Amino acid sequence: MSHHAKARRASPEPSLQSWFTRIAEAHQRIGDAVHRTPVVTSATLDGVCGARVFLKCENLQRTGAFKIRGATNAVRSLTGEERRRGVVAHSSGNHAQAVALAARMAGTRAHIVMPEDSSPVKLAATRGYGAQVHLCKPTLASREETAARLQEEHDLVLVHPFDDDRVIAGQGTAAKELLEEMPDLDVLLAPVSGGGLLSGSAIAARSLCPGIRIIGCEPLHADDAHRSFREGSLQPGSARATIADGLRATLSEKTLGLLLAFVDEIVTVPEEAILPALLFVLQRIKLVIEPSSAVVIAPLLSGALDVKDKKVGVILSGGNVGPEVLGMLGAF
Amino acid sequence: MSHHAKARRASPEPSLQSWFTRIAEAHQRIGDAVHRTPVVTSATLDGVCGARVFLKCENLQRTGAFKIRGATNAVRSLTGEERRRGVVAHSSGNHAQAVALAARMAGTRAHIVMPEDSSPVKLAATRGYGAQVHLCKPTLASREETAARLQEEHDLVLVHPFDDDRVIAGQGTAAKELLEEMPDLDVLLAPVSGGGLLSGSAIAARSLCPGIRIIGCEPLHADDAHRSFREGSLQPGSARATIADGLRATLSEKTLGLLLAFVDEIVTVPEEAILPALLFVLQRIKLVIEPSSAVVIAPLLSGALDVKDKKVGVILSGGNVGPEVLGMLGAF
Repeated sequence: MSHHAKARRASPEPSLQSWFTRIAEAHQRIGDAVHRTPVVTSATLDGVCGARVFLKCENLQRTGAFKIRGATNAVRSLTGEERRRGVVAHSSGNHAQAVALAARMAGTRAHIVMPEDSSPVKLAATRGYGAQVHLCKPTLASREETAARLQEEHDLVLVHPFDDDRVIAGQGTAAKELLEEMPDLDVLLAPVSGGGLLSGSAIAARSLCPGIRIIGCEPLHADDAHRSFREGSLQPGSARATIADGLRATLSEKTLGLLLAFVDEIVTVPEEAILPALLFVLQRIKLVIEPSSAVVIAPLLSGALDVKDKKVGVILSGGNVGPEVLGMLGAF
Repeated sequence: MSHHAKARRASPEPSLQSWFTRIAEAHQRIGDAVHRTPVVTSATLDGVCGARVFLKCENLQRTGAFKIRGATNAVRSLTGEERRRGVVAHSSGNHAQAVALAARMAGTRAHIVMPEDSSPVKLAATRGYGAQVHLCKPTLASREETAARLQEEHDLVLVHPFDDDRVIAGQGTAAKELLEEMPDLDVLLAPVSGGGLLSGSAIAARSLCPGIRIIGCEPLHADDAHRSFREGSLQPGSARATIADGLRATLSEKTLGLLLAFVDEIVTVPEEAILPALLFVLQRIKLVIEPSSAVVIAPLLSGALDVKDKKVGVILSGGNVGPEVLGMLGAF
């Protein structure tokens, strides 16, 4: 399988077993704080792609996305002393709300750096969880700089959205639950952005179901993971806009290494296929998913992925859509 | 409790035990053909109404609504001879698709009478399940007349949307599943139209959890069940339009008798509260529900129902929204 060929380029190869142990420990640690989300099926979707598809509904997760899993694992892994100091995170989206809620549950203080053009809904939600929001310029550099300054000033612990073992282990618990419920999947699909969800999912799936084919899905307009995976080294991000705004981050050395070791393939999704996939799920499956999750449905609808007669697991990563996306749907 | 006072007016009082046996038998009969739908919770909804709410997601059911339960129970209860003759049903909505799919699964022929102004989506879906669709004028009289003529001409078995013991028993299986999963609910909410879902739900809930408070929810613009329940006798339907188009039917003697015996209360919901409740569920809980289901959420959001500190079960009856409703949401 292709992931073996790829894995040779990554060095040192991460140990699957020790990583899976971290996921199992994370699952114990966060189990009472996050939903065990349902797995939903749809005869209509199965009919379209000729497969049996099992949708792990992280859109129904607390805060509306899987991010609460990794954030809770990270915050609950803090020492008592670190918890007294507090945490800092930077995010324009779901990670902000996740860290804010995880911190509130742990009785610690969260400082969240968010771009000044973040949607008012997301700002309000993050503040609603009790976090102190710090606005910054809408660039990655400004986000990182502001977070680093706060970290320094207030002696905070950084909870990175994906470049953090505790976060990766937490994100892997969703796939672990799915594979525990459906142990004989042939294929697992998850979106890829910074690679935390995909690498965690791949570790869990490869451990519980060694022969499974693990595929990351990415917008063509943000295809750095696809290029980095192909080249075996980190490639720069793309400057093109995508409606899948949760998938604009780029991999880290750590997540690329995990993907090269445990993932089989990364497919890219044309921009114009994303909203129709979202609308299909909304109208036919009755679930609200965000564009970043629709990226995983699109290749099933288009036939770009041949999954005929397979049992396919899908991580529906989140359901946080703003009024601007709802407005577009009305026009379809 | 008020339902005892009401029950005295109904004669003869239906036997709770024999009705529950029918539901248990229906559950056995249809179990392999319908989804055991998930129960979803939302901290946001709980926060708004000060209760713990458990949403039984029949919007994620096959055909997008609970109706497949009753239709499948009815069709699978046919004798071999009846199955050879085929079935007829009249419906402008979810019952049409449900009977069509139930008939196809049973290898029998379905004739479905639908008003000529039915949405193209619903007509296509019903035909997609292999049913022969017969258009009629958009009045109840024309629907019943056309169905009766077809029944006579083709010697068909009528599957009524609610005035049928097999259908009522099938609809009750959703509440049975919910109470099996959450055995200590204080309150159960379900929408009421012709009364099949509410009476089936009430039988199941009253049997499994005798002290539970069972409340039907109805649009103020289609409040015949509320009036009939209060008067203890069938009252005429209302002529006012409601966006909850699935709730325009009126009770039958049979369903009114069951409601008087087993339901505690019927509340009415102002028309202007329905779409905001739908939007709340869409944006905050990430589920698509139809306006007829939003009628059950609205009184929780408005405080019209005092459920403080209670455990509340809710039957989310369906998720079939047309593009016209999606368009309205974009404008909110």
